[in-house]
Amino acid sequence: MSSNPDNGPAVSRREFDELFEAVRTWGRWPAPGRGAWNRVTADHVRAAASLVRTGTVVPIGRPWDTRPGPDNTRPALHHMSDLGDVEPPEPSAYKDFLGADYHGKSVTHLDALSHLAYRGLLYDGRDARGSVGAGGARFGSVQELGPLVTRGVLLDLPAVLGVDWLEPGRAVHAADVTAAERALGVTLGDGDAVLLRSGRFRRRRELGPWDCGAASAGWHVDAVPLLGERGVCLLGADGDSDVRPSPVEGVHSPVHTLAITAMGVPLLDNLDLEALSAACAGAGRYAFLLVATPLNVPGGTGSPVNPVAVM
Amino acid sequence: MSSNPDNGPAVSRREFDELFEAVRTWGRWPAPGRGAWNRVTADHVRAAASLVRTGTVVPIGRPWDTRPGPDNTRPALHHMSDLGDVEPPEPSAYKDFLGADYHGKSVTHLDALSHLAYRGLLYDGRDARGSVGAGGARFGSVQELGPLVTRGVLLDLPAVLGVDWLEPGRAVHAADVTAAERALGVTLGDGDAVLLRSGRFRRRRELGPWDCGAASAGWHVDAVPLLGERGVCLLGADGDSDVRPSPVEGVHSPVHTLAITAMGVPLLDNLDLEALSAACAGAGRYAFLLVATPLNVPGGTGSPVNPVAVM
Amino acid sequence: MSSNPDNGPAVSRREFDELFEAVRTWGRWPAPGRGAWNRVTADHVRAAASLVRTGTVVPIGRPWDTRPGPDNTRPALHHMSDLGDVEPPEPSAYKDFLGADYHGKSVTHLDALSHLAYRGLLYDGRDARGSVGAGGARFGSVQELGPLVTRGVLLDLPAVLGVDWLEPGRAVHAADVTAAERALGVTLGDGDAVLLRSGRFRRRRELGPWDCGAASAGWHVDAVPLLGERGVCLLGADGDSDVRPSPVEGVHSPVHTLAITAMGVPLLDNLDLEALSAACAGAGRYAFLLVATPLNVPGGTGSPVNPVAVM
Amino acid sequence: MSSNPDNGPAVSRREFDELFEAVRTWGRWPAPGRGAWNRVTADHVRAAASLVRTGTVVPIGRPWDTRPGPDNTRPALHHMSDLGDVEPPEPSAYKDFLGADYHGKSVTHLDALSHLAYRGLLYDGRDARGSVGAGGARFGSVQELGPLVTRGVLLDLPAVLGVDWLEPGRAVHAADVTAAERALGVTLGDGDAVLLRSGRFRRRRELGPWDCGAASAGWHVDAVPLLGERGVCLLGADGDSDVRPSPVEGVHSPVHTLAITAMGVPLLDNLDLEALSAACAGAGRYAFLLVATPLNVPGGTGSPVNPVAVM
Repeated sequence: MSSNPDNGPAVSRREFDELFEAVRTWGRWPAPGRGAWNRVTADHVRAAASLVRTGTVVPIGRPWDTRPGPDNTRPALHHMSDLGDVEPPEPSAYKDFLGADYHGKSVTHLDALSHLAYRGLLYDGRDARGSVGAGGARFGSVQELGPLVTRGVLLDLPAVLGVDWLEPGRAVHAADVTAAERALGVTLGDGDAVLLRSGRFRRRRELGPWDCGAASAGWHVDAVPLLGERGVCLLGADGDSDVRPSPVEGVHSPVHTLAITAMGVPLLDNLDLEALSAACAGAGRYAFLLVATPLNVPGGTGSPVNPVAVM
Repeated sequence: MSSNPDNGPAVSRREFDELFEAVRTWGRWPAPGRGAWNRVTADHVRAAASLVRTGTVVPIGRPWDTRPGPDNTRPALHHMSDLGDVEPPEPSAYKDFLGADYHGKSVTHLDALSHLAYRGLLYDGRDARGSVGAGGARFGSVQELGPLVTRGVLLDLPAVLGVDWLEPGRAVHAADVTAAERALGVTLGDGDAVLLRSGRFRRRRELGPWDCGAASAGWHVDAVPLLGERGVCLLGADGDSDVRPSPVEGVHSPVHTLAITAMGVPLLDNLDLEALSAACAGAGRYAFLLVATPLNVPGGTGSPVNPVAVM
Repeated sequence: MSSNPDNGPAVSRREFDELFEAVRTWGRWPAPGRGAWNRVTADHVRAAASLVRTGTVVPIGRPWDTRPGPDNTRPALHHMSDLGDVEPPEPSAYKDFLGADYHGKSVTHLDALSHLAYRGLLYDGRDARGSVGAGGARFGSVQELGPLVTRGVLLDLPAVLGVDWLEPGRAVHAADVTAAERALGVTLGDGDAVLLRSGRFRRRRELGPWDCGAASAGWHVDAVPLLGERGVCLLGADGDSDVRPSPVEGVHSPVHTLAITAMGVPLLDNLDLEALSAACAGAGRYAFLLVATPLNVPGGTGSPVNPVAVM
Repeated sequence: MSSNPDNGPAVSRREFDELFEAVRTWGRWPAPGRGAWNRVTADHVRAAASLVRTGTVVPIGRPWDTRPGPDNTRPALHHMSDLGDVEPPEPSAYKDFLGADYHGKSVTHLDALSHLAYRGLLYDGRDARGSVGAGGARFGSVQELGPLVTRGVLLDLPAVLGVDWLEPGRAVHAADVTAAERALGVTLGDGDAVLLRSGRFRRRRELGPWDCGAASAGWHVDAVPLLGERGVCLLGADGDSDVRPSPVEGVHSPVHTLAITAMGVPLLDNLDLEALSAACAGAGRYAFLLVATPLNVPGGTGSPVNPVAVM
């Protein structure tokens, strides 16, 4: 790997493929379409529920955004379909239509295992072409995943580093994980959902939106083996987990690929972690009950969500 | 009130208006747009989390349904927007668009306080016309509500009555509540989310869909004062909480009106409570941690959701 | 071919394939994506314009229908997006969103040549899988077709037969064409758009909607060679041109297949021809200027339209 | 009126209101929802059809644009709903969903008379609030308008002035009309559809898109009385007819207001007139048969269209 000041060491396609093999968990799980969520047993759920101390509930979903921008190229739809004048009163009804091509850089959403294929294969080695069509996914749908209730851990990198935010392009490495674990007093463990805060939405509020596809802070692929060893079941982030530009030649979203396709680890993209950062700092605790409940979409490759942390 | 064999005693408009006044809680809450969710304090959240015993997670949202039917007159949309051939690989991406005019009888959804007005007024006496427009709701939006974490109680009427389901049109009364409380070993209390099971989806699977707007089992308005006294914060149901046809002259959804508009109690409609019924029966417990996380839609009158019960 | 009282003689798959070969025009046209519209030269346009006598303009598109029904399984969307309260006045603006999965039995629409493939091939022998993806059609799009201005001929079968409508399932044969030509005083010719009236919408208004996929009047495949000889460039109908149920074993839409895939003849489905029938009867003329202007959708497989006949 | 170098003389609100009164045609027409289209009689249709000389058909609708940009803030939707794998073969079907919030600066569309209100009133003095609701328009819908077949005249200002395009902000005045009439050999007359070319799409192809709401070439209100005297029935443009910024204080779209609300003259916005400019120059004629066929949307405030000029 050669050096790159912005987004970490460059990684060749061969090195990436070796990494893919090294972290691959195909064939391991009884319910392969749920991938790493098989890790989360009833014991994990009980343990996560027992983390609730203050009872503070912190939602981490972004507002539904209907305005286009450099980080919102497929704006969501929100239309009023009744303003008390369609269905007859009484009572008068106010109704609305919601729509979104939710994958992208704006809508807070979950990526199910059918979202990505590498070299033509989905997680567990399923043939992508045969598994996903215009009617949806027959393997790895968000319906197969269902909801997640587990321990969440906020890796609040700006808090660890004493900065307002990580600059776009800043790669997060294994050493950042261990440094954060020490600084925040928490160690990632089996079945955890790890939420990586880069401070994107603080930066966005102060400096305005930018093209996150061109530059964003996120994981470098060299951190993924450690995340795999820790046994995490989900990667969440205020970006989309991948540092951009990608340090891997010919692979635009290498962390997505390793997580989803090699390891069966779903992603939560575009979380707004600012309030959670403040809540964790206030409580002096970076682990909490996390609940993410995707919509029950047969064949869906993911879902808009509004997960909550319960402190 | 005169007698009606199907849907309980008929109620005149004057009687209904008296009931509305009797249960009205306008002006009571510091955050009026959250209505009865003001009842749910951090203490309630902690107490609800402490209910987790087995760690079983039961989602209660219906599948996203794109086929029209007598109970699905505005079918949801699900379109694949990328099948690995739009965004260039690697990896190849599979993406989809979701859309729904979600109020109605099919999509599992939350009704926020802006969903309904009675005599031109929303909850807390807000003028409906001035509060909701083509741009959305300026009072009582689902964004104001945010997520709900509280104790859920399943009123499993078919289990109490020893039937497969309540027939469409069967009204549920205060006496049914107290009988269910005794039979199920749980008493509704302050801040509880009550989930009324009529067995709709068991009936639907066995007999096929029907027009739930014309006939469905649900609360009679005469049960609402008791629910108010108990201090419930949410009415959920496998129907839409209202018995239909409505027993109230000139009011098509009287329980909606009393709950949302008079009492500030949001509704969860079209829950699939069949698996939860089995889980509660198996555990011998009808109270659990309930988490409902609506999408964060500014100005939205509600949201599709997939709530979970954690046993 | 064996006899079938309802929808004409049954046709084996082998017979169908022979018919397909017999009428196939692959390789014939300089602009293959426009298929039989290559027939319509500037001379045809001028000749069609010269047919205008009275100046009566008759639109033949159905109303946009947002209600589901047996003949509308994917109802169209119509949402108001501004009611004078989103964009600031003055003036105040009223805006709306329109959406439709328009292929089907409800929306009046044009089928472009990318709409159908037979044995994996589009018109002109193009590989369907390689030509159409989630990003749209790269061959045979509605953008390639563009608008059509030509002579239209109404084959008003109920008028010829002295009935209110053809019953669903009634097959239309070559002999019906020649009988209609004699009765109506018009002969189909090169570059003509033929509009087949079965009286569907008169029947629908009088008897209500039915499942047109299960039974509708339309062309039998045995009429297609004559239509090919006549050199028609478009098949329009108040149904979708195919008699249903299909008389061809294993082919659900055999006239679609012969027209679009073998002959490059686009289709206009779900025309409301009732007013045009009256106008033609009144004028004593069944030929007119026809103008159909699909939306300019790159990669679209067709388009909603509202064609006009100018008498 | 004071001078303004960019967008013509500034106009006070009082002056604008006087202009509104001067050109107002309320109460004049038997079918008020069709406004100035009442001018177009069968005689006009016949005369327009007789203009066809070469038989060249020139579509003037822009491509359906799904990418956001400074002139496309509500991008259109285009989703494939079947790629031969949903409905069973044979044949295999390729289908798509189209959706658009079409008013704006991108989609070629027709504005019906319900699109705009001034001081609370639609054309013909109808109360806007009582006439348009979440269910659509009850007066002035695009369904009432129906299709237009009439003489079209291209006012090709760049051709007249010997420039590539009019710069954004350039106001077009009555004197420009008479100069263009002389230069192009055509005089606007009763029932004509006037198409104003500014060269927007040539500029866009050469220089890229810009925010047309902030600056675009178009009519100054001082030209409207002449257009009214000429008896035009429609204003079309490659922009949206209004010069921007608006020269009228407190009125963001004054030409829209005078045309639609005072005069009942629908608008065609976002036409691509580049090919038509070349065709007219080649033919040495700027008048032609124009056909615009909006979708038949009950209650619609307009429609996406792809009009054609037939030379």
